[in-house]
Amino acid sequence: MKDGKRMDVISRLSVGSDAKMVLLVLDGLGGLPHPETGLTELETASTPHLDQLAKDSICGLIHAVGPGITPGSGPGHLALFGYNPLEWDVGRGVLSAVGVGMELTPDDLAARVNFCTVENGVITDRRAGRISTEENARLCRKLSAIHIDGVEVEIRPEKEHRAALVFRGPRLSPHITDTDPQRAGLPPLQCQPLPDGGEDAVHTAELVNEYLRQAAEVLADEYPANMIITRGFSKMPDLPTLDRLYGLRAAAIATYPMYRALAKLVGMEVLETGPTISDQVECLEKNWERHDYFFIHYKYTDSRGEDGDFQAKVRCIEEVDAYVPRILALRPDVLVVTGDHSTPSLLKAHSWHPSPLIFHSRWERRDEVNSFGETACAGGGLGTFPAQNLMALMLASSLRLSKYGA
Amino acid sequence: MKDGKRMDVISRLSVGSDAKMVLLVLDGLGGLPHPETGLTELETASTPHLDQLAKDSICGLIHAVGPGITPGSGPGHLALFGYNPLEWDVGRGVLSAVGVGMELTPDDLAARVNFCTVENGVITDRRAGRISTEENARLCRKLSAIHIDGVEVEIRPEKEHRAALVFRGPRLSPHITDTDPQRAGLPPLQCQPLPDGGEDAVHTAELVNEYLRQAAEVLADEYPANMIITRGFSKMPDLPTLDRLYGLRAAAIATYPMYRALAKLVGMEVLETGPTISDQVECLEKNWERHDYFFIHYKYTDSRGEDGDFQAKVRCIEEVDAYVPRILALRPDVLVVTGDHSTPSLLKAHSWHPSPLIFHSRWERRDEVNSFGETACAGGGLGTFPAQNLMALMLASSLRLSKYGA
Repeated sequence: MKDGKRMDVISRLSVGSDAKMVLLVLDGLGGLPHPETGLTELETASTPHLDQLAKDSICGLIHAVGPGITPGSGPGHLALFGYNPLEWDVGRGVLSAVGVGMELTPDDLAARVNFCTVENGVITDRRAGRISTEENARLCRKLSAIHIDGVEVEIRPEKEHRAALVFRGPRLSPHITDTDPQRAGLPPLQCQPLPDGGEDAVHTAELVNEYLRQAAEVLADEYPANMIITRGFSKMPDLPTLDRLYGLRAAAIATYPMYRALAKLVGMEVLETGPTISDQVECLEKNWERHDYFFIHYKYTDSRGEDGDFQAKVRCIEEVDAYVPRILALRPDVLVVTGDHSTPSLLKAHSWHPSPLIFHSRWERRDEVNSFGETACAGGGLGTFPAQNLMALMLASSLRLSKYGA
Repeated sequence: MKDGKRMDVISRLSVGSDAKMVLLVLDGLGGLPHPETGLTELETASTPHLDQLAKDSICGLIHAVGPGITPGSGPGHLALFGYNPLEWDVGRGVLSAVGVGMELTPDDLAARVNFCTVENGVITDRRAGRISTEENARLCRKLSAIHIDGVEVEIRPEKEHRAALVFRGPRLSPHITDTDPQRAGLPPLQCQPLPDGGEDAVHTAELVNEYLRQAAEVLADEYPANMIITRGFSKMPDLPTLDRLYGLRAAAIATYPMYRALAKLVGMEVLETGPTISDQVECLEKNWERHDYFFIHYKYTDSRGEDGDFQAKVRCIEEVDAYVPRILALRPDVLVVTGDHSTPSLLKAHSWHPSPLIFHSRWERRDEVNSFGETACAGGGLGTFPAQNLMALMLASSLRLSKYGA
């Protein structure tokens, strides 16, 4: 069934309910077995509470985009929220801009920016020595003096060397190339229209090149951040919100800008929280009455996986495990624990392997799984299924979906 | 997801790699349990090397077309190569023509031919007593004298009573009926346009009937091969090649014309090999450096299944098992062992049952399966999945697919 059709059906069947749902995402949770023990990070971790939860639940594996396909964080989360990531595309530029709180109209064009170091015409550091966020803010103010006829430009700092750039005006096209060459030793690239981009893409590439020409002048006397490179030019996708689709009052408890941005794009209220899982659970407790769907995003499992630090990822999983009882004490009607994709320490990167999943609800069946791990979940009662079906299962188990057909 | 979209995405994500992949297909591998032992052919066979491989791998079951659907060899293999067999159709005529080395343009129309025996107007033997291939070649030369205005016709012998027929000219349509009635006791059928075939189908059916009228005259004094019947009229499908899609230098080690034809259609180089599995593995060893994807096709499991000879099929599986160590000695990055469909000896025919599969790669998880068999694989970590997803998994595990989305 086409995704639009599937979402329409589920949306049409939705009814009100007081049930509370929690989606706890351990970013990059899934892993690969350690060569010496044959156990993954999750299987190595001591997780008494997650094991007990798996025992009291039904388990399975999910893939966000499709078998063999490694999801980026955007597609990984869109799938968890019920959207087919192959039909809904959220660009890196939009995620950056929304992440720093910029409002985007459908006409605006956003890009992700890196401050970088250029010497003798070639990039020597794509991150300009990871300049401080304060230095970044100062340089963004300096760049705000740039003026280009017929278009309004705004640049805002993210953390360290990262910034978000937005062009506002008519005829802006996202069908243009990145100027970030993705590795040092090369000059910043010229922005070019993509083959099928048409007149608007030609026009937009000219604007971007003019902006970058002026940026080079403005930053000429700075060091190490004497240039910027851009990537992920994109416009706001027309995502239907979770409120509009299912009448959900959804909330996100996430600390990283990109995940807060993704949550905002699907209509979640982004709650204020401290940076630790303890802070996040406290935030959940405080806001329990005000929402009926909570997305909690824990970042560090992914970070330690990308570092290739198997043991550190194990400890991150154990850290989250300790907070499961406090979440359960709130008596959620549905609690799902899973990942948006796998990040095996052995690969030091996102991977295509499906994510283990616990689905806990009074209105679900049980299976034979009695510990939380990839191999155990492969034998779980939910089998291996597309992550985009998770939302319908959560809605169903909170008795929010009426019958289809007579 | 539509297959075209899925293939586009995977194609777009493809990157280069030196990794080597081997797909070992035991044709018709899957079976049904023997009534006395409760074990299938594969479960009955003594396969120490495949069992060890299953233990060191992740396992599952694949279906080529869909649950309950019995695949022909064409769809079965197209799925293994990553094509949705419901969207890509390769006709029997095309397979015959390509199998005997005929070059087809998109305008050409191909058919599979049987020499047959006609007595008193009805077919008494659909295979003309399985005439020799030499006799077949002599008759094909005789038929080459046939002339029809506005179209060029070529007929070439396959083995025994089989031949390939190609029409070359304008306005040829594959939307016409077979003239093979599929059983003895009936006259050869008239070729007719299919309901939605339009003018071109009417025109083409006339050409075919004229050809068959002349063929009857040419063969009138021959016996037992005094007529031909045709089926599977088809044109070349516009299959994107594995090279174009994924940059693969793929090679086929297959002995039967149809499988060599299928491999050629998807852009594989068809290697020269002797007829035994020993020859085929030797061919693999010799060509190891020149390619990065090897399709090895072993035919006899299917043949003995179709004979209904349970024990002979068991021995075929054991024969292949003995060569697994030599394949492993090449240290392939990915080794998959499976079938294109099942051929249970008890049914003496292809069947709809999913094929057992071993997926061996350093970059895959493990599961609890420790012997190679249908029941064991049903509990495998990959679950039961569409065969067309296998290619993406093989590409992913050879680190040939980059990340999807930001």
